[in-house]
Amino acid sequence: MKEQNKEQKQTGFVQDIANLNEDFAQWYTDVITKTKLVDYGPVKGTMVMRPYGYGIWELLRDELDKRIKETGHENTYFPMFIPKSFLMKEAEHVEGFAPEVALVTHVGNEELGEHLVVRPTSETIICDMFSKWINSYRDLPMLINQWANVVRMEKTTRPFLRTSEFLWQEGHTVHATDEEAEIETIKMLNVYVEFCKNILAMPVLSGKKSEKEKFAGARDTYSIEAMMKDGKSLQAGTSHNLGQNFAKAFNIKFLDKDGTHKFGYQTSWGVTTRLIGALIMVHGDQRGLALPPPVAPIQVQIIPIADHKKGVKEACEKLCKKLAKAGIRVKIDLTDERPGFKLNECEMKGVPIRLELGPRDIEGGVATFVRRDKLEEGKQQLSLDKIDKTIKIMLDDITKNMYDKALKNLHDNIETAKTYGELEKVINGNKFALTMWCGERACEEKVKKDFAASSRNMPFDQTSIADNCSICGKKGNHKIYFAKAY
Amino acid sequence: MKEQNKEQKQTGFVQDIANLNEDFAQWYTDVITKTKLVDYGPVKGTMVMRPYGYGIWELLRDELDKRIKETGHENTYFPMFIPKSFLMKEAEHVEGFAPEVALVTHVGNEELGEHLVVRPTSETIICDMFSKWINSYRDLPMLINQWANVVRMEKTTRPFLRTSEFLWQEGHTVHATDEEAEIETIKMLNVYVEFCKNILAMPVLSGKKSEKEKFAGARDTYSIEAMMKDGKSLQAGTSHNLGQNFAKAFNIKFLDKDGTHKFGYQTSWGVTTRLIGALIMVHGDQRGLALPPPVAPIQVQIIPIADHKKGVKEACEKLCKKLAKAGIRVKIDLTDERPGFKLNECEMKGVPIRLELGPRDIEGGVATFVRRDKLEEGKQQLSLDKIDKTIKIMLDDITKNMYDKALKNLHDNIETAKTYGELEKVINGNKFALTMWCGERACEEKVKKDFAASSRNMPFDQTSIADNCSICGKKGNHKIYFAKAY
Repeated sequence: MKEQNKEQKQTGFVQDIANLNEDFAQWYTDVITKTKLVDYGPVKGTMVMRPYGYGIWELLRDELDKRIKETGHENTYFPMFIPKSFLMKEAEHVEGFAPEVALVTHVGNEELGEHLVVRPTSETIICDMFSKWINSYRDLPMLINQWANVVRMEKTTRPFLRTSEFLWQEGHTVHATDEEAEIETIKMLNVYVEFCKNILAMPVLSGKKSEKEKFAGARDTYSIEAMMKDGKSLQAGTSHNLGQNFAKAFNIKFLDKDGTHKFGYQTSWGVTTRLIGALIMVHGDQRGLALPPPVAPIQVQIIPIADHKKGVKEACEKLCKKLAKAGIRVKIDLTDERPGFKLNECEMKGVPIRLELGPRDIEGGVATFVRRDKLEEGKQQLSLDKIDKTIKIMLDDITKNMYDKALKNLHDNIETAKTYGELEKVINGNKFALTMWCGERACEEKVKKDFAASSRNMPFDQTSIADNCSICGKKGNHKIYFAKAY
Repeated sequence: MKEQNKEQKQTGFVQDIANLNEDFAQWYTDVITKTKLVDYGPVKGTMVMRPYGYGIWELLRDELDKRIKETGHENTYFPMFIPKSFLMKEAEHVEGFAPEVALVTHVGNEELGEHLVVRPTSETIICDMFSKWINSYRDLPMLINQWANVVRMEKTTRPFLRTSEFLWQEGHTVHATDEEAEIETIKMLNVYVEFCKNILAMPVLSGKKSEKEKFAGARDTYSIEAMMKDGKSLQAGTSHNLGQNFAKAFNIKFLDKDGTHKFGYQTSWGVTTRLIGALIMVHGDQRGLALPPPVAPIQVQIIPIADHKKGVKEACEKLCKKLAKAGIRVKIDLTDERPGFKLNECEMKGVPIRLELGPRDIEGGVATFVRRDKLEEGKQQLSLDKIDKTIKIMLDDITKNMYDKALKNLHDNIETAKTYGELEKVINGNKFALTMWCGERACEEKVKKDFAASSRNMPFDQTSIADNCSICGKKGNHKIYFAKAY
């Protein structure tokens, strides 16, 4: 480890990243820009996803897409321009989105007859088509999804976390009964939970949002909340039971088996490029990024040592081919930088496994490796024989270990609060408060005003922890998380 | 075959599709809507890609994406909103796109300080970032691509062929020398040619566009042109050598090995959802769609015969599993429609292989199959033993056979024209004319005015076929295709 510290000083990499404990916001900015995940677009609040950042998105998308298809949904693509009048049809929906929608008013120099909204979400345009496509119970359930860009022109933005344009998937379904819609809503929430665990190595808290925090137009919203390293919560995905709100606004009716016409019951659910921000703030550390193997564009980086010596480059290339053949995403760093620079860059970019190969390793039939999730264990060696199998197992173990570490951090930073004083202490200690709440919006607003924190969600396990609302002292009807949030 | 005709009459499917020879436009509309590829969006000129249509796009995209990555390009994502001033920087570019760009002028009720263009293509915003990212020859070549939606508000639209919003990929590269940029331009054109052949079973003519027909801002544009069943040409993809036009407008400079600063040399290239329109009009027939196996969402449709009889459903499900396990996209039609309806729907949807399985087939250890590309051969039988391998080979053969048929159609409908009279005859006979051309725009405009046809491209093989321009009679400098076009 001493050797590594020396290398860092020479290259100066780690010093370039702000201190995670002292200035988390600057740490985040440094990490995302220095690792070339992202750049700032010319229009305020927009981001450019560079190859390394978009590479993470592609892997994440493909894994989630597989799950969305396995649960019976089919992909589609709807137009991005929505007639302004559509947005007006569902009262809560328009109130929620109108202030931040981008409006297309002109084509070239000519003004349009009806102004167009650039989709902030696609419920309205999809419901318009559902009303055409759905006639009979035979057409149900209708289960679709789309991967698309959406636009919400918010004032305060930050790459990945909140940008005026972002990428996401949005599932939209129609069912014959209320019960089926609720089952779907929870099913997709659980798909997100499993996906976050196994693909992003990220534990989340799932539960129901309060009325105040639910999606504009939904009957009920469920969310998954993740804990960032600064103790703030990040809403990482939502699943909405829309009830019949949109079906009534858009006249989505079907002829049921009993011969009567009924409105459909709907759901929608989505996750966004925000998940990349979550990943960074759950796993990153003072050395930079730490990527879970399933979404790491490079899973193994091979660094040749003394590559001017005979046989080193060839051995590296042979090893690279062997690992690639086993389906591992592997790269050799053949740039003319010094090894110390290469090692640090590899750590900063969060590559799960670094393999060093020099004349001595080759002679001994081994490679030297360092796990990004266990830097404290330093350099170790593994046999070149069956290295492809060893590495595969190691990659799985890294995902599991990263999840366990994050889960421990989550559990260590949740505290119950039974009084307003305890609530204050927990929230201002940058932890999640698990508390009882009466159900009134006024109490949420008080917490917002006093501690700049919001209700996150109500866990499915509603076993009571106290009798009274920790805010107003009235009856505590719901167990709920409060925390500062992104 | 007689039996099939009877079935068609009963279900009335084929009669629902307009006659391909009498009204090709209506045939196209019927095919794309009745097979549920697409629907019309609420805003004029927009389309909704339904699961079957989007399924084709996903397969096509994944195959092309693989090729784009194999040739060393990395995916990225740039913002869709471009400051209006960016578009103005390259003179030809703004002239070409300004009249059809959608302008975002407001957010909610507030007018924006600078109006934003919804990308019609991304050269300008990407070049703005290139100018930041590129400093030294070490940063070159820079090879990126993006999959995105773009907007061009054209007056006359048609699903897939020309829609105000469409999906595409756009590659953007920067090179140190003019020569390297030209090599890249042609390399990616050839990637498209190979892709069209092996994935879309579609032969194309590749060559250079005239000055009049090139991309607004390019130095040279190359295209691939495909022949539709009505004899019209469809530009199916383009590859542009941008020279230093954008590099100068956006100040993309690098420090070269010789210590001097130089402007980069650029290329861009793209294909769009238009390729789905091409597919339909190259392979479709009076029975509907015919999809090449590599992009068919369903490659094999199993139709149970007499499925009320014992063992039929089970045998179908067993067969389905076996084929799915071999990586074949297979589906069983278990709806309660009559077999005749199912057979016709399967044909109309262009499923490459239809498998029928009834009690007699099961008893004989066979399945009855019909190839969509060889309907004239009618029903045949194949052994259930090793059917997965047999079907895989058959799918490859279908792709090849579809390509060969389309190639024959292409060759049969190209004629040389040495005089203006011959040119008229060929073009008005709905064929492609291969002719000599002086190089003057006036001659292209004359052909446009007289025959409503345009120059398509100049093949790489420029072996002369006559001395004079068939239009004005002056020296014939270029061998070129003229045709009516989409």
